[in-house]
Amino acid sequence: MISVKEASTIIQSNTKSFGEELVAFQESQFRVLKEEIVADRDFPPFNRVCMDGIAISEKAFLEGIRDFKIEGIQAAGSPQLELKDYKNCIEIMTGSVLSKNADVVIPYELVQIEKGTATVAVETVKKLQNIHLQGKDRKKGEILISENKIITAAEIGVLATVGKSEVLVEKQPKVMIVSTGDELVEVSESPLNYQIRRSNVYSLVSLLKELFISAETAHLPDDKVSLKAAISKYLETYDVLLFSGAVSKGKFDFIPEVLEELGVEKLFHKVKQRPGKPFWFGQRVAFDMSKQDVFKNKKQTTIFAFPGNPISTYVNCLKYFYPWYSKSIGIDSEKKEYAKLDSDVVFNPKMTYFLQVKIENRLGEVIAIPFSGNGSGDLANLADADAFIELPAEVSEFKKGSIFPILRYRKF
Amino acid sequence: MISVKEASTIIQSNTKSFGEELVAFQESQFRVLKEEIVADRDFPPFNRVCMDGIAISEKAFLEGIRDFKIEGIQAAGSPQLELKDYKNCIEIMTGSVLSKNADVVIPYELVQIEKGTATVAVETVKKLQNIHLQGKDRKKGEILISENKIITAAEIGVLATVGKSEVLVEKQPKVMIVSTGDELVEVSESPLNYQIRRSNVYSLVSLLKELFISAETAHLPDDKVSLKAAISKYLETYDVLLFSGAVSKGKFDFIPEVLEELGVEKLFHKVKQRPGKPFWFGQRVAFDMSKQDVFKNKKQTTIFAFPGNPISTYVNCLKYFYPWYSKSIGIDSEKKEYAKLDSDVVFNPKMTYFLQVKIENRLGEVIAIPFSGNGSGDLANLADADAFIELPAEVSEFKKGSIFPILRYRKF
Repeated sequence: MISVKEASTIIQSNTKSFGEELVAFQESQFRVLKEEIVADRDFPPFNRVCMDGIAISEKAFLEGIRDFKIEGIQAAGSPQLELKDYKNCIEIMTGSVLSKNADVVIPYELVQIEKGTATVAVETVKKLQNIHLQGKDRKKGEILISENKIITAAEIGVLATVGKSEVLVEKQPKVMIVSTGDELVEVSESPLNYQIRRSNVYSLVSLLKELFISAETAHLPDDKVSLKAAISKYLETYDVLLFSGAVSKGKFDFIPEVLEELGVEKLFHKVKQRPGKPFWFGQRVAFDMSKQDVFKNKKQTTIFAFPGNPISTYVNCLKYFYPWYSKSIGIDSEKKEYAKLDSDVVFNPKMTYFLQVKIENRLGEVIAIPFSGNGSGDLANLADADAFIELPAEVSEFKKGSIFPILRYRKF
Repeated sequence: MISVKEASTIIQSNTKSFGEELVAFQESQFRVLKEEIVADRDFPPFNRVCMDGIAISEKAFLEGIRDFKIEGIQAAGSPQLELKDYKNCIEIMTGSVLSKNADVVIPYELVQIEKGTATVAVETVKKLQNIHLQGKDRKKGEILISENKIITAAEIGVLATVGKSEVLVEKQPKVMIVSTGDELVEVSESPLNYQIRRSNVYSLVSLLKELFISAETAHLPDDKVSLKAAISKYLETYDVLLFSGAVSKGKFDFIPEVLEELGVEKLFHKVKQRPGKPFWFGQRVAFDMSKQDVFKNKKQTTIFAFPGNPISTYVNCLKYFYPWYSKSIGIDSEKKEYAKLDSDVVFNPKMTYFLQVKIENRLGEVIAIPFSGNGSGDLANLADADAFIELPAEVSEFKKGSIFPILRYRKF
């Protein structure tokens, strides 16, 4: 049995890219950028007025002029006007180009307009006041967003601004989520007294939806022949197979056996952790010998076979699949979130303990409140907690105030 | 001009429900639950075996029996077997019903099976060991999830377990996002030298997508007649109108005027904050006099008219629209996230200052690193930061280590 750290290391050294694709920029939210986004022009692209008021020439003001005849109105979105007589002014709007020959903008609040003349009530002006100079924010050609950034609303705005109507992003993996277990019935069915409803695949689908991955699902019977036939097809089609159940010592736990028979290399089975111990991880790399460049045409399928206990499946998806996916698509998978224990915890087994906690931000400190639920088998506990805190195997007494990494699944 | 606090109070006292609807449970993720979810049976629903091994009777063990003849195999998903002779055993799998007359499960690791007999190598057993008793987690009828909870992957699993194939959730509001400004061209167009591309509506659409709201968008010209005609229609159709731009003192800033002419009550205009000051907020309540119950059939439209500066629009959406939406759908809108300033900040104007910061979790502390960008007009700064920190109006020197609320827009 290996440690949680060893398991993570093996998983993180078996990541892979899913390829790249162009998508409409509005569809790129939550995806990972695979190109640099560069300023296509200066920002602002012109000397941009940032107050509504009048544009004058500093020279006139310095000569003592306070009454300015209005030559015209410069609206946003209109071609640049020219101040013909430097002693006059132009009414000018936020967002418009500064008029030619003008170099000061005085806001309406400080101006009185009567019969076509604007009188200003200020003692001094500053050259270029209320003008956002061309290129002040960014110069044409400057990098605005670097590669491998997750696209949020902020980046969407930048993409729009520079005219990237299409943008290169990492493809999402093709994922198949498979449940097994003859005791399972569909959600809409009434289980008999020895049956339960299928829930893990739906939790997994939702956990992947939080990463904006649309996964497919299937249920397979506890029968070796059917399992093998179905999984053999999935290995050809999907980048990732997620299993839930049938990975332990039971008579009908055929998954590890079937996977190995289908050429999947077992990278480990069982991790020193609770819950989630009988986790099986493997990979198959197949080469298409009919293709010219055999190595370029390899098909790599990664298999996460989680234990069937709902909490085990859940915590293992967060702990192992999430960072594997992050590293695969090129984003930082090392960044951890930490929290401070709100009370003492004792856990004697020499295994990593993933304890359910509620999370609070108490004046800038992230506090993990251990959640005394009904034991790790109880799925409903998940609905009452916000995260798992990861307590290391080497220690058995964890003091209030000590700090450990958390796996947070509730973000709001 | 009112304070940020006053603005928030006014906005939060003008929330409203959008109604409820039934959706398929797989589609309910990120929505707000509007019913209690109750255990439809005990959990576990039967005495559930939690190890693969053999089931025996404690009585036989206490009598000194260590070799048990195997009567049969109890698989998960099969009806309960009965241990016919209490001196025998049944091979039993994780997830199955405990066989009748058995009360101890011994895992395969401690058992040797040869010629139909299982020999156990243990000195003691505990009655009911490795058995998860019926109803231990939850009793039939117990509340598993309460109303007004946001549905995450955890809740999806619970809904599946109790067979809620359809679930009652709050409807999402119908939102129209309107940009104005004749200087704006489409993202795919090449702007002339006095034009810029339309970006705020796309940022707003994305910010709303993070709340799982699908908003519609429109662009209106800076022309009072067209504005009035279009907005008049939107008031009939939408729960919320979001504007960006045309709310200031400019000659073509018709929005406040048009809204008031259309019967929208202005609740405030301008807030003591930077950026985002010229924010206009109002509401129209219209009664359908043709309907029998006039008050029940009122149509309430809420209008957030944000300033056109991209950062202003962005911060105001986070600061005002987000909590308004949260309170409207029934979730806690008071919960704040705090962070500790990582360096001194000075801001002299007597206004609330929304400063862009990067966020780091340093061993359980949320740290806000002020981001020295190119000034508040620079949209590309948003791509480099993670949040705004809200620095109060009454103070002008903010010391390193002091703690303030943050508005976080980047969650990963």
